[in-house]
Amino acid sequence: MTDERVQALVDDVEPLDGTAMREARERQSQLTKPAGALGVLEETSVQLAGITRACPPPALRRPVVAVFAGDHGVHAQGVTPWPQEVTASMVANFRAGGAAVNVLARQVGAEVVVVDMGVAADLEPGPGLLDRKVRRGTADLAVGPAMTVAEAVTAILAGADVARDLVAQGHDCLLTGDMGIANTTPCAALVAAFTGEPPERVTGRGTGVDDATLARKVEVVEAALAQRPVGDDPVRTLASLGGFEHAALVGFLLAGAALRVPVVLDGVVSGAAALVAAALAPEAAGHWLAGHRSVEPGHTVALASLGMRPLVDLDLRLGEGTGAVLAFPLVESAGALLREMATFDSAGVAQKDAT
Amino acid sequence: MTDERVQALVDDVEPLDGTAMREARERQSQLTKPAGALGVLEETSVQLAGITRACPPPALRRPVVAVFAGDHGVHAQGVTPWPQEVTASMVANFRAGGAAVNVLARQVGAEVVVVDMGVAADLEPGPGLLDRKVRRGTADLAVGPAMTVAEAVTAILAGADVARDLVAQGHDCLLTGDMGIANTTPCAALVAAFTGEPPERVTGRGTGVDDATLARKVEVVEAALAQRPVGDDPVRTLASLGGFEHAALVGFLLAGAALRVPVVLDGVVSGAAALVAAALAPEAAGHWLAGHRSVEPGHTVALASLGMRPLVDLDLRLGEGTGAVLAFPLVESAGALLREMATFDSAGVAQKDAT
Repeated sequence: MTDERVQALVDDVEPLDGTAMREARERQSQLTKPAGALGVLEETSVQLAGITRACPPPALRRPVVAVFAGDHGVHAQGVTPWPQEVTASMVANFRAGGAAVNVLARQVGAEVVVVDMGVAADLEPGPGLLDRKVRRGTADLAVGPAMTVAEAVTAILAGADVARDLVAQGHDCLLTGDMGIANTTPCAALVAAFTGEPPERVTGRGTGVDDATLARKVEVVEAALAQRPVGDDPVRTLASLGGFEHAALVGFLLAGAALRVPVVLDGVVSGAAALVAAALAPEAAGHWLAGHRSVEPGHTVALASLGMRPLVDLDLRLGEGTGAVLAFPLVESAGALLREMATFDSAGVAQKDAT
Repeated sequence: MTDERVQALVDDVEPLDGTAMREARERQSQLTKPAGALGVLEETSVQLAGITRACPPPALRRPVVAVFAGDHGVHAQGVTPWPQEVTASMVANFRAGGAAVNVLARQVGAEVVVVDMGVAADLEPGPGLLDRKVRRGTADLAVGPAMTVAEAVTAILAGADVARDLVAQGHDCLLTGDMGIANTTPCAALVAAFTGEPPERVTGRGTGVDDATLARKVEVVEAALAQRPVGDDPVRTLASLGGFEHAALVGFLLAGAALRVPVVLDGVVSGAAALVAAALAPEAAGHWLAGHRSVEPGHTVALASLGMRPLVDLDLRLGEGTGAVLAFPLVESAGALLREMATFDSAGVAQKDAT
């Protein structure tokens, strides 16, 4: 039984606009190029028309990347060689503009907003940080549920609020990001839970852990799934296995869809959250674009399950939103082609001979 | 025996700067991210340092895409359903700003320059068009050499001149482009000639031709290679099988390397030209980046032969420079990361525990 406030988020999601998509396909066929020659960009332009309910889709002038940060009780299991305090120092790095996501965001004119969902430290209040801390880190998913269902709901609603606030401020494209030392272990657990794939197929090296640590991660995920079998309630599964940043992303993705704003997904954390959100609201998924494919194996499994093809595929495994931000110019270019290209008629270009 | 002016282009090419590349690798290891987490972008940043002889590499602020246009005598063999006049109308479309490459170039702030290397029509002089026409279309490669060696040399030198002029004007990144109805047939012939792969493996559907036309293309390439076996002289092979736009691109690629300017390659036409240029000057290839992989099978073979991994892989098959322009932000982002990211020391971020 889904919490009624989460159900309201789900109920606000509507299907893509079929009329705008048909118009976009028809327009693509008139542009000065062989049919299909722009490949994935043509499909992306049609999707943008469907999301924004407009053909051609409007220019996306104010992208923003929301970096949801949280810590993880499962860190105690030795699933990563990085100290937990790095989550808080990286939040400071984001706020100072020195992290990879900041550099990439400057390149494409995107704003960066950091949301503290559950960092295990007291962060200094101030600009560039939204305090939506649920708790100082989740509980250890190896020994019990990572959070209560009530906490999961709180985090989902917080993520939805962030999406609504950003769109109300004029942002027209939402990019997902995350930060949380140890967060690829809950990712693997969520992907295994929502796709039914065995843990060893969806658990990866995260920041680049060694074989022993990888084996430990797989054991932890197997134990959690054995101890708390997956049921029918996506929010309960999220609470059992996920992180606060995953939960916030679920709300962010649902609200983005309801707001009819394109959402560009980053890597495996966003992919795991997308599986949860799509389980709640299958029609929401059409509003999301896979920014990239990370090297984390669970991400490939998640994208396949969601039926998404990534725009960028360059062996990144950093998170933060880096893959989403890199993909943004490709998304915007797809829309621009539909808006700005000449047609065969307008340019006086002959078409191919009928065959 | 290579023409002495072409040999001079080859002699001007120097190896990448190993010192700058070592500095770039060392700097990558200090940036606030797990080692290797930025994947291909890290390798690209090292390559940019090697090309520009500077660590970090300078920002690329004035990209330009040169669209080399030419017609092809092999059009008479029925290798495409598109009328030859489309080459000239698309040149007009480029000049009017309505083609896909124009739209994408505006997105990334790149200038578009069109170079008439051999369009089979008289083009109106004026802004945005460089007249370097060698002849009104090549001869039919199915029945004899496409051009004389002297014509190939003229076209190579013209392409090199274009690169030098653009760099003298302040452009700091060269993107390749092409336009020429029927030009995937000479591409297939060149890729087969320079890689030794059989024609049926490297000949594709170009704009999307049907099975019968594809079979015709393969026959044409097989016949040309049987009639005029490939020898040791890359320029003679180019003259036998290529187009004027391919020849110009060979000079453009060699001069770009000699000028130490990053050159981003578009699709199969650029890939075929790169095989010729690399056969002349193997050290030039390190100065080029594969912008994308097209669906044309000869392009995948060419990239593998050149040892290049494409930055964008989205089933494009349009040419014009579209894939190179789409990749430009990824190239520039790679350099920006090396220039702008904080280090562990500067940001006060802890590193992972020694293992």
